[in-house]
Amino acid sequence: MQNRLIVYDTTLRDGGQSEGISFSADDKIKIARLLDDFGVDYIEGGWPGSNPKDLEFFHRAKSLKLKNARIASFGSTRKVNTPAAEDPNLRALLEAETPITTIFGKSWDLHVIEGLRTTLAENLNLIRDSVAFLRSHGKEVIYDAEHFFDGYVADPDYALETLGVAQAAGANCIVLCDTNGGTLTMQLLDIIKVVQERYPGMPLGLHAHNDGDVAVANSLAALHHGVHHIQGTINGYGERCGNANLCSIMADAAFKMEVRVSPKLALQELTSLSRHVSEIANLPHREESPFVGNSAFAHKAGIHVSAMQRNRRTYEHIEPEKIGNHRRVLVSDQSGQSNILYKAGELGVDITSDHADVKNLVKVLKEMEHLGYQYEGADASLEVLIKKSAGQYQPYFALESARVIVDKSENGFLYAEAILKIRVKDKIEHTAAEGHGPVDSLDAALRKALVQFYPGLESVKLVDYKVRVLNSELATAAKVRVFIESSDGITTWGTVGVSDNIIEASWQALADSINFYLMRTVNGM
Amino acid sequence: MQNRLIVYDTTLRDGGQSEGISFSADDKIKIARLLDDFGVDYIEGGWPGSNPKDLEFFHRAKSLKLKNARIASFGSTRKVNTPAAEDPNLRALLEAETPITTIFGKSWDLHVIEGLRTTLAENLNLIRDSVAFLRSHGKEVIYDAEHFFDGYVADPDYALETLGVAQAAGANCIVLCDTNGGTLTMQLLDIIKVVQERYPGMPLGLHAHNDGDVAVANSLAALHHGVHHIQGTINGYGERCGNANLCSIMADAAFKMEVRVSPKLALQELTSLSRHVSEIANLPHREESPFVGNSAFAHKAGIHVSAMQRNRRTYEHIEPEKIGNHRRVLVSDQSGQSNILYKAGELGVDITSDHADVKNLVKVLKEMEHLGYQYEGADASLEVLIKKSAGQYQPYFALESARVIVDKSENGFLYAEAILKIRVKDKIEHTAAEGHGPVDSLDAALRKALVQFYPGLESVKLVDYKVRVLNSELATAAKVRVFIESSDGITTWGTVGVSDNIIEASWQALADSINFYLMRTVNGM
Repeated sequence: MQNRLIVYDTTLRDGGQSEGISFSADDKIKIARLLDDFGVDYIEGGWPGSNPKDLEFFHRAKSLKLKNARIASFGSTRKVNTPAAEDPNLRALLEAETPITTIFGKSWDLHVIEGLRTTLAENLNLIRDSVAFLRSHGKEVIYDAEHFFDGYVADPDYALETLGVAQAAGANCIVLCDTNGGTLTMQLLDIIKVVQERYPGMPLGLHAHNDGDVAVANSLAALHHGVHHIQGTINGYGERCGNANLCSIMADAAFKMEVRVSPKLALQELTSLSRHVSEIANLPHREESPFVGNSAFAHKAGIHVSAMQRNRRTYEHIEPEKIGNHRRVLVSDQSGQSNILYKAGELGVDITSDHADVKNLVKVLKEMEHLGYQYEGADASLEVLIKKSAGQYQPYFALESARVIVDKSENGFLYAEAILKIRVKDKIEHTAAEGHGPVDSLDAALRKALVQFYPGLESVKLVDYKVRVLNSELATAAKVRVFIESSDGITTWGTVGVSDNIIEASWQALADSINFYLMRTVNGM
Repeated sequence: MQNRLIVYDTTLRDGGQSEGISFSADDKIKIARLLDDFGVDYIEGGWPGSNPKDLEFFHRAKSLKLKNARIASFGSTRKVNTPAAEDPNLRALLEAETPITTIFGKSWDLHVIEGLRTTLAENLNLIRDSVAFLRSHGKEVIYDAEHFFDGYVADPDYALETLGVAQAAGANCIVLCDTNGGTLTMQLLDIIKVVQERYPGMPLGLHAHNDGDVAVANSLAALHHGVHHIQGTINGYGERCGNANLCSIMADAAFKMEVRVSPKLALQELTSLSRHVSEIANLPHREESPFVGNSAFAHKAGIHVSAMQRNRRTYEHIEPEKIGNHRRVLVSDQSGQSNILYKAGELGVDITSDHADVKNLVKVLKEMEHLGYQYEGADASLEVLIKKSAGQYQPYFALESARVIVDKSENGFLYAEAILKIRVKDKIEHTAAEGHGPVDSLDAALRKALVQFYPGLESVKLVDYKVRVLNSELATAAKVRVFIESSDGITTWGTVGVSDNIIEASWQALADSINFYLMRTVNGM
């Protein structure tokens, strides 16, 4: 085992236990490629004995040409009363044909007696036989000591003995698991030190869960004390409160600790990795995530912004570029004028620092935020607003009238249609289009009306559409805020709309998006 | 200072710096009441010198009758070249008329020289004068040593000196702030030990941010080493990656550490506090939050569920009831039959454990999840599905046809209308209704058609409405999943619908919700 941080990723197995995540085999292949490109050491692919999706993954993984990582399959020790060679779980691990097999065994007397319903002595046989069997088939074996910390508290001698048995049977690494995730850092370190005294030189790993909200700190503390193999998941995905978040662990280890990390880790791609995995998981990216979150380097307090304009170290713990993130300055009713001037400068809007102009803009922003608009994440709407307020904006089209119809007929046939009357370049375009739903039909009709005047719109696509209810007293009558993200294949931009009618809110965001694109690309009016 | 965990809440001040949060004075009053009921020691209300909302809060806070907590106002040390008695910031603190004033001063030479643009010696005067001034007006003074850990690394002697000056001037508690949030636990502890050696008996506090993903662990480590005053926010709200999460800190300290906590802390209300604050903040409650999240005690893996049916300790680090949360068993295509049987039992559905029935249900669930349905959080739709699959379900009404129209006329007038043909008790109801938007009008028309047959529906309200785009390639043409939460004032239930047409998806969730309510309340068909 190398004397550096060894990254063992279990996003595909333990991460898939997250509430709301359901990876297809295809998703898993995509994530495995991303992890390999990023440079992790191990990718735990799944539990071949547990379900057909994982079997398909291992089948397809055989033809993956990995540059950095090696794939591990995961399973349990043999069943009671079944010889290792005949155990279906262990056989499934061999059939997965991975270079690494990771098996978990019981460390906690409670689980041996109540879970396996066998004796403490027989559990040692299960561990010994299973590790030895896989080793005899040429596998690198990682032994996960399930519930090790709880087991140690219940019966220290027995828990320690299970580790010794796994090592004697040939396990290449012994991973201490805080399966229930409730162990705090001080206690965890005390127990790790006992293990290290009892078994000097044993190659150790840690598998932490976040139920006590200290999984990252536990992993870093273990790493600091010579436990080099660290298991976790991208974005901390995992059952209940999740696993230790590898994004934070890798960044902390690389930039803040005196430990070696693999030179292959493409840390400047960390933010992109994190976002990409959340997209595949079909979960919103957590804005407040350390290092990789959209808010991780976002500054709202006016005092911070004005100080950072002099020296960026003052309110940033590391340079965001190191992990592929970037600084953002937020504009809100709490911002001072320095935020707004910074933002206007960033957007390239020619706004004078004349106080009347800026104060007027602060006032308009407060009014809009009071109505429910939010410009964090809707830079394009903000730019339109700032230009309007500075008298530098004219829309490229105007809505005369709109009608949207959704029809479900007696035979179940579903139909959505939008009819629009638009004024563009002093002509009236009256047109209609179908779509998958009301907003899609509105989008289609608007493009149909505009594309003859602005052919560049062919390249503009809506890439995300989000709806947020602003007050939940009367849900469908409540105000909704719609965010739309658009892209022309090169850049993306966000816009916002607010109304108690979801169609109207969507229209506002749609209109801002198209106007913003035209403002950036069309010369003259 | 007492020899127990002192909880200093800054949700109203630092928490309000979260991206996406904008507390009104009214919100702040509500949260202050919740915090007081819960039993925290201090509530930092805001910065009276910074904005009118905070001024209003302090004005109204004077008439709050608090049972447990005391209110603190927050501000900076006096300005360079302004005597304390004339400093507008310090005067605003006095005018807030709070028993506690918390002031922050500079510990980091960089900030003194580049931020304040003064000398290191003058900064000591600012601290001394400001603390002494507030003390002379009878205030309890908490001194926040801003950027203390970064300052210590840059110039240990100077950083330590600032603490001594604040203490000598009469500060009642000296709070070490990791303002940039980048200090890891081991380093933080080393520095705290130096402070404790240099100033034995100094009453210390910690203010941690989560940029390194270890804010909770840092707070617990400090507490373990005799730092009793801990600052943080509910749900870890705060600028960038947030502040230390008090929900986790209070639960860890109370249930897992050998420290005393206030007997006034209503820990069994922790989950409710966390949710309530997130509602007021108008942010979705973080599902995966330790202790208080909806997923914190949610079990998905079949192996966990079958083990827990024998002994709950096996996969739960504490009893969820201790903090007002509860166990959930999730049903997904990864679940074994034990999850589904558990769930059916929990829902009171009479499903036999006969294998053909259960296997059929697992198959149906997999198909529905493949289509994009998700039953986590939509128990009512799951119950309808399980009963359908068991042949124990008949709908209370059937849709014959529906039409929804949204109209925006030339004068900007906005109008939404739904026309429905519904079969109910063998009659056809053909009716129409207006609403705030398309879904609201659909809801109104459906109730209008049904309420004469089922008067109990008067009490049913939709309390939440969420839309999620399932794949973002072509945003408005993508499938959407709609979740609806309904309530009859006593219980709440969730339903789900999926379609590439948002109106159709909303209809499905709406129909499930009404059918579920009728199934529970109407005797016979």
